[in-house]
Amino acid sequence: MSTHGWHADASEILRVDSGFRLERLEADSTPGYDGDKHRAAKDLAHRVQELGELQERLWAQSRVDETRHAVLLVLQAMDSAGKGGIVRHVVGGVDPQGVELAAFKAPTDEERAQDFLRRVEKRLPSPGYIGVFDRSHYEDVLIGKVRSLADAAEIERRYDAINAFESRVAASGTRIIKVMLHISPEEQKERLMERLERPDKHWKYNPGDVDERLLWPDYMAAYQTVFERTSTDAAPWYVVPADHKWYARLAVQELLISALQDTDPQWPVADFDVEAEKKRLAAS
Amino acid sequence: MSTHGWHADASEILRVDSGFRLERLEADSTPGYDGDKHRAAKDLAHRVQELGELQERLWAQSRVDETRHAVLLVLQAMDSAGKGGIVRHVVGGVDPQGVELAAFKAPTDEERAQDFLRRVEKRLPSPGYIGVFDRSHYEDVLIGKVRSLADAAEIERRYDAINAFESRVAASGTRIIKVMLHISPEEQKERLMERLERPDKHWKYNPGDVDERLLWPDYMAAYQTVFERTSTDAAPWYVVPADHKWYARLAVQELLISALQDTDPQWPVADFDVEAEKKRLAAS
Repeated sequence: MSTHGWHADASEILRVDSGFRLERLEADSTPGYDGDKHRAAKDLAHRVQELGELQERLWAQSRVDETRHAVLLVLQAMDSAGKGGIVRHVVGGVDPQGVELAAFKAPTDEERAQDFLRRVEKRLPSPGYIGVFDRSHYEDVLIGKVRSLADAAEIERRYDAINAFESRVAASGTRIIKVMLHISPEEQKERLMERLERPDKHWKYNPGDVDERLLWPDYMAAYQTVFERTSTDAAPWYVVPADHKWYARLAVQELLISALQDTDPQWPVADFDVEAEKKRLAAS
Repeated sequence: MSTHGWHADASEILRVDSGFRLERLEADSTPGYDGDKHRAAKDLAHRVQELGELQERLWAQSRVDETRHAVLLVLQAMDSAGKGGIVRHVVGGVDPQGVELAAFKAPTDEERAQDFLRRVEKRLPSPGYIGVFDRSHYEDVLIGKVRSLADAAEIERRYDAINAFESRVAASGTRIIKVMLHISPEEQKERLMERLERPDKHWKYNPGDVDERLLWPDYMAAYQTVFERTSTDAAPWYVVPADHKWYARLAVQELLISALQDTDPQWPVADFDVEAEKKRLAAS
């Protein structure tokens, strides 16, 4: 994949493998990509066509029951890292009919009384769809661990439960891409400050954001453990440096394209007599 | 609204009022709009900013529980009239996080055993969302009537049930915009033929499309009755000439903007002490 500004395959260079250390990855780096912001905008616009066609092929197959494939993009990050921008600028580039978005907030009392994977299972994408999880079951081993919302044994149990769950989902035909958008605390401070400085951004600010921010090292440690315990062949993690929004968007776009290419979607072949239909239509 | 190529307000000129006759509206006309295809593309791109900001304001309000407003766009049309293009090119211009799409196919056996409005009620947009119905409960008085899937008394009952239902939905804060995309049978023939001529479009073609096409006058009569019985102040119908895709998209964009403007969404005011938070953030 040496097209455009990429000199490496994003799905290889950003993938979490054994030995990965989050603290060694610079949040303002742009692994595998040589271009700047200007070039990135062009590359993003250019590749949206390819992403769109792949998605349409997958969708077309699902309309005639020819595929069991789906794609699930899981987005996790500290606040203001740009999940919303990925949804808007990357996922927003494909036909909305083929996208299923699920934003997971703090669980309700009813959800809390159930197994933590249950509400996630309900929102898995159907064949033909790109599903996007804005936060996910990983909150249950991130804030769940950092804030001690569950005891240590339960957190341990959850890693295994997640792996079993994702393995089953992958085996059913869904390509799972798990992305952590990695920003620096300095960049987060700037972004939160901007929200405070602009009245039209006040609604995006929550005083609780600063409380979470004070636990930054704990969150990074929790993410590191998540990567070690749950980055599997069936459902690998990708850590995407996100201090440069343009890089993060471009990288996630590449990851989506790569996942769709793996499903190798083909235009369905007509199950009717095309020439006979042309005549029937012409006569109508 | 004399901006751009518009010389009339789409939400007035396209609205179905008493005395409306479908057969008098040319499917290749462009009511209220002076521009051509080229200018329309520019106007569409220009207005997407305004649509996007209105949607974001509505969304922002809903995030802080300050609104009960939502928008529901109902799309009805003969096959190939361009519903998908509206979803992709008009609705696709706003943040996908704030959109709830529902495509209604032929009802399942389970749905058929229930009241026809039940599956529709389940998919109504929550406050803050733009909901889009790709087909809707109107199928139950369109194909339902043309194909005699229900008897005449039941069809009669449904018009009243729809009006009562929509009146309740509107009273709860949802702006309802019902759009019929109006194409000519000649234009449909061209579009269906193109699907037959391109292997990558075969999946969009269904031999049943020609069967429905043969019932064109019956469908137009059924639509005319729908307009007469269900175009209400709470939930008006708009008939959008759609032989020119660029006009239909532009017109529906105007209808959405107009509906959002009616809800007059405002950026939420901070419920925290902005200056205190700036200090707390700076110190973090």
